[in-house]
This record gives sequence, structure tokens and C-alpha cells, in this order.
Amino acid sequence: MRLSKLFTKTSKSAPADEVSKNAQLLIRAGFVYKIMAGVYAYNPLGLKVLNKITQIIREEMDGLGCQELIMTGLQKKETWMTTGRWDDDKVDIWFKSKLKDDTEVGFGWSHEEPIIEMVKQYLSSYKDFPINVYQFQTKFRNETRAKSGIIRGREFLMKDMYSCNGSAQENQAFYDETIEAYNRIYKRLGIGDDTYVTFASGGDFTKFSHEFQTICDAGEDYIYVDRQKNIAVNEEVLDDENLAKLGINRDELEKLRSVEVGNIFNFGTQKSEDMDFTFTDANNKKQLVYLSSYGIGVTRVMGVIAEKFADDKGLVWPESVAPAKVYLVPIGSEAVTARADDIYNELTSKGIEVLYDDRDMRPGQKFADCELMGIPYRLTISDRMLDSGDYELVSRKDGNQSLLTHDQLLAKLG
Amino acid sequence: MRLSKLFTKTSKSAPADEVSKNAQLLIRAGFVYKIMAGVYAYNPLGLKVLNKITQIIREEMDGLGCQELIMTGLQKKETWMTTGRWDDDKVDIWFKSKLKDDTEVGFGWSHEEPIIEMVKQYLSSYKDFPINVYQFQTKFRNETRAKSGIIRGREFLMKDMYSCNGSAQENQAFYDETIEAYNRIYKRLGIGDDTYVTFASGGDFTKFSHEFQTICDAGEDYIYVDRQKNIAVNEEVLDDENLAKLGINRDELEKLRSVEVGNIFNFGTQKSEDMDFTFTDANNKKQLVYLSSYGIGVTRVMGVIAEKFADDKGLVWPESVAPAKVYLVPIGSEAVTARADDIYNELTSKGIEVLYDDRDMRPGQKFADCELMGIPYRLTISDRMLDSGDYELVSRKDGNQSLLTHDQLLAKLG
Repeated sequence: MRLSKLFTKTSKSAPADEVSKNAQLLIRAGFVYKIMAGVYAYNPLGLKVLNKITQIIREEMDGLGCQELIMTGLQKKETWMTTGRWDDDKVDIWFKSKLKDDTEVGFGWSHEEPIIEMVKQYLSSYKDFPINVYQFQTKFRNETRAKSGIIRGREFLMKDMYSCNGSAQENQAFYDETIEAYNRIYKRLGIGDDTYVTFASGGDFTKFSHEFQTICDAGEDYIYVDRQKNIAVNEEVLDDENLAKLGINRDELEKLRSVEVGNIFNFGTQKSEDMDFTFTDANNKKQLVYLSSYGIGVTRVMGVIAEKFADDKGLVWPESVAPAKVYLVPIGSEAVTARADDIYNELTSKGIEVLYDDRDMRPGQKFADCELMGIPYRLTISDRMLDSGDYELVSRKDGNQSLLTHDQLLAKLG
Repeated sequence: MRLSKLFTKTSKSAPADEVSKNAQLLIRAGFVYKIMAGVYAYNPLGLKVLNKITQIIREEMDGLGCQELIMTGLQKKETWMTTGRWDDDKVDIWFKSKLKDDTEVGFGWSHEEPIIEMVKQYLSSYKDFPINVYQFQTKFRNETRAKSGIIRGREFLMKDMYSCNGSAQENQAFYDETIEAYNRIYKRLGIGDDTYVTFASGGDFTKFSHEFQTICDAGEDYIYVDRQKNIAVNEEVLDDENLAKLGINRDELEKLRSVEVGNIFNFGTQKSEDMDFTFTDANNKKQLVYLSSYGIGVTRVMGVIAEKFADDKGLVWPESVAPAKVYLVPIGSEAVTARADDIYNELTSKGIEVLYDDRDMRPGQKFADCELMGIPYRLTISDRMLDSGDYELVSRKDGNQSLLTHDQLLAKLG
């Protein structure tokens, strides 16, 4: 894309009321726009990042054999009455409104109950199981404070997946498979090295649930990491009994700030009992369905990536989620522009995404924008390079600079 | 996809309270699930149709040079106060709620004001224009009655696009270009022949606005069509003065039921004036921006396609939006299954989407499901055909049946 056509502009400052680093940078780079605290619109470059994260998650969910669907924002009171979670004393983040006939409706802060109510209409025999469904859905949560930018929104995008199994063993096996899929997702998103499967308290049915926590200074949580064993526990389960059970030594734990980027939960049959979700087994006996739920905050993950890798010059996107791989800057004569046009067309035709800074602007300003936007490679073409035939490529991550021939450039970016 | 894995099931009847044909069929086929009146979830096959419609629209919007973004459901009162449209007497379909500190918030029934407020932050000079932005966004509308299935939802998906231009001429030129793009969209969606650019009343700034109306018995509107001239007018503008202006003869008009599948509107500078959206021209003078808006109800279009082409056996999808092109039914021995597996793998590997009915079920039931789901081609393999090597292909649209060799089959479907 040519930057002369992009409607957003970068800016030197963020809104005065924006206190979070991720939102400050994303706003300054033109990726997001603040509607109100905790509510952000995604401009073209921000939407590109979000779509790449979404697609990585989708591929891994599809790989598990999950089926994508899309529920609704509007939800029925009756659905949530079955588990008592319509009550504002139990769930204090509801946005509610009313139909014209005074019927109360809620705006989905979660889809657990609605999605279970939906799938159970289709499933009745043991032959129907297992099934796993997921969606990318906007959630509305009436948070009292929303000061973490897109890491904790009043409106945000979430991937929520639900597994329905006929037995505890199958339920557990799929739960374990999903942990592996989640690990692959965080690795592909570039935060794998700093994301830990973290033991959290498990509620009534199961001893532990699992969180995925990414080490990040902006985190609202603390986790206790055993780097050697590659696992962590959260504060809730930090007691001698649990540590013993997990084979962890308290002295080897490191206390670190973190953000929860995923959460998986084994409901066992508790939720099915509340919602009367049963099936007929091979012996014609009625059985409760085993359920688990698996969430990833998509916009939150984007915020964590933004916040975690940023430096004093701006954002630093991993290649897998960057809005483009290359930021192309021509400096100099018309011959340089012609060469830049050619390489832009050539890279684009090979499917390599390029932000072409064809704006009438000083090179220093373009370099600064490239750094603020966090594009992995800056490709510079100047008069000097026209003679040598070389291309200058600078890596955003480490600042490494190289002079490459045309073939070397294509090999590097291809 | 193998139907034995799909969690939805077809059913012989729709919910008793569902009165619209499109929703009855979509529910029976398992494409959508009713949450409440006017609020439907999209199951895997329904989501596939929706995504195909979305992608066709996206390609045409991108072709016009429009930039995709995504706004938010939560909206600020102040934004809508600028045009007086926060007032429930002016806009009677708001869903509103409150933040914890009692701040009123609205749920987007439209994004005109928020999107203009957003883009104007980035645009100040004549050099910044033209720009066109669009989104696919969920809209919430508190309709008193919602009896038309997914044709009129309380929650629905809309494509809304906005053009910002520096002059009336450029504004009009882009408006005219968009009419052509819309015509291409409806053609690609399979409803081009029955969709008319319809003259509607234009409000303060412009004599006429334009609707795109599709002839459909389920329509809530009537239009008056001049088939010869390929244009239509709606009831609002059906008077002698307007007809004369449009060069239409009243006697040649045919009154037909229709559904509005798109709406475009030239605001001129009226909305910019309300919202103080200005720019500095080449002579350093302040000027108002020319705005137009362009909507397509994405879920509504899906409802119109469902309703319009359906017959007594079920849905009939045009190929461009069908959830799969082929419905594969093996009948008979294990050798048939092996052949079906092979052709399933072969077609899939060529990018041809196949619903493989590998369920343990009578052929008649499978045929009925294929018809209910409206898949364009049913491909049957039976023992008899194993000997001949032929494949039986039946077209859903016209029931035409053909026996094809392997090569003919691939040529036909490829």
C-alpha cells in the first residue's frame, strides 16, 4: 500500500487521558483510534495486525477439528438464569438494555451459556460426540476502570472455543491437545518464549485450571515461574500442598509481572448439569456431557505484543503479525522513484506486503514513522545506491543494516 | 467437510414462532440458530455463506480504493448530540446502557457520526482527499417487530462505506462509480437481474438518493419498475414532477414487492457542517468536506438470496455464495465408499468445496438434506456407476441430471 493513500497519520503525542503504553503507541502510529476508555476502533494498519492474529488462531483451531460459527451480542436473560449468572451481584460487568416491550436483554460479556444452549439443540446421542465449536466474537464488559489500553477493554475481540465430550477421558485428552495448540499459537505470534502454561485454581470440578501468561511489565498479574521446568503458578495456587503436587520447589520460583493471554477451563459435568445438557449413551442411558472452554483475548494479545516489544522509537512487530513486512523509502531523484516503483511492484506481485512511503516528506520523518509503526524491514533506495545497484535493508528488531543485491534482497524477503 | 463431523443437523420443522420463510429454511437446514426474534447466530454453513458474501463486497470496495477499518459497538452520547440523533424521539431504535459511573452509552445502530468524528482527526488539507473508508460491522437496532427473519434483524451485519471529497464534482463522480460497483456486487451475488437502482427521496441536499431494491415476495417495500429503461422509483418519489425529471412514463411502470439490499446517500456538505468537518484548500481557505454514505445489509442480502431462490424442497444457493459447490453421496458397498473418498480428496485438493455426506443414513434422507441445504451440485456414486466409471451429477437449480466421466466431471466443476 502507498502511504500517500492511507488516511491515518502518525502523531508525536497520544491523547492526554491515555495512560497505557500499548494504546499510546498504537494511537500515535495510527493503528487504533480511541472512542472512550477501553473502547478502541481499529484503523487499516491495526485491522491488518488483528486479522493476522485471528488467522493464526483460526488455523490452529481448525487443525484441532473445531468448527467456526458466530453467536450474537444480544443475549437472553433466561439463558443466564439457568446458572444464576444474570444476577449483577454474581457478574458485575453486564451491559444490559431493554426491548421496546420492556424485555431485558444483555450484551454478551461471555458466550458460555448461550453457546451451550445452542449446541445442545443438535446433540443427543453418543454418536454425536465429540464436537468442538469456536468463534471470534466481540465481548462487552462494563469494567469500572479501563486503563490498560487494548489489553483490558470494555469492548474487545475474543476467540472462545468449547469442547463437548462423552467421557472424562476424551474431555481431558482434548484439553491436553489444546494446550499444545495454544503453545503453537503463542510461538507463531512471537511471544512463545515468554508465555507460560500457568496453574490456576480450578473451581469445583477440577483441581487446577490453566492460564497462559506472558511476561510483560504492563501486566496486572504476578506469576511464579520455574524456568527450568517451563511452568508457572499464579498467586491463588501458591501454597505448599499445590507446589508439592506439581513437583515445584518454592526456592526456584521467580516472581514476574505478566498478562493472561489465554485461559482454559475444564468444567467436567458441572455446567451440563446446570443447563441440562445430556446425551443417550450406547446402552440407552442418559449421561451428562463433559465440557471445557478455551479463550484467547485477540485484541489483548495484540496489546501485549505491542507493549512487550516496543522500544523508545515505537512499535516492533514480529513478522508473523506485522501489517507489512517491508517499509520502502525512496530518497532522491526521479530515477530513484522509478526504481522504487519497480521494486514495490515486484515485491507486491510476489505476495510480499510493502508499505511504500511515497509521501512528499523529509527522509528523517519517514524513517521515524517506519520505526514508530514497527515494520520489520526498512528498505531504502537512494541515488548513491542506483549506481551500485544495491538495496539498503535495516531490521527494526535489532537495527542491523545490510547492503543487498537484487537477488539477495528477494532471497531475504521471499 | 464430512457431514458426520458437522455438529448441526437438519430438521423437518422450524420453531413455531418463526414466521419468515428465509429463517424457517435457514434454521431447518442448520445454517442459523434463533436466539430471539430478529437475533440469529450463524452456524458453520451459515457462516460460510456470510463470509462469501462479505468477501465479494470487500473485493469490490477494495477495487474502488476504499480502506477497511473496524469501529466499535459502544458509542458516545456526545458524538450523536452533534447532529441531534441521540434523541430517542429522532432515532427510536437505540439500545442504550450505562457505564458504572452512570455515563450513558449507546450500541451502534449506525456509524455515520462516529466514523466522521474519527476520520476528521486525520484529515485537514485538500491534499488529504479523497478518502473512502468502510467496515463490516454488527449493528444493533431496537426494532419493535422483527418478523422477517434475517432480512430485518435487531442485530445484523452491515457493510457501511463513507466517501470524503473536497468538491461536489469529485463527490458525485465517486458516487456514480459506487453505483457501478454495487451493480457488480449484486450480479456476483446472483441477484443482479432482479435488483434495480431505485430513485428515493434525497433529503435536504440532493434531489434523489438511491436504493438498490431486489424483487422479492417477502419484501416490505413496493417499487415501480420500468423494465425497459432498467430503473425503478419508490413510493416516495412517485409523482408526475419526479417521473418527468427521470424521463419515465407512469403507464410503463410495474408495481412489485421488493427488499432494499443497498442504500447510498449523498450528504453534500450538510453533515460536515453539523459535525464541523472542514479542510484547508489550495488557497488556504477553510472548506466543508463533501460526504456520501453507502450501505449494504450483508445478512439481509443473505436472507433475500435464501428467500428468493428457495423452492418447496429448500434453499437454492447461487454458486458464488453456496457453502460448498458439491454435495457428495455414496450409495452402496465399501468399494463405493472408497471411490467417494478418492473423489472427495481429489476435488478438495483442487480447491473445490465438497460436503461429503458420509453419515450412516438412507440415501433418500441424504438427497433431501442436499436439497434443503441448497448445494448447487449433488454428486452421486453407486455400485452401478462403479462398473461404468461414471458419476451422476444433479443440478439443484434446475434438476438437470447428467452422467459424466471422470474428466468431464472435473471439467464441469473445476
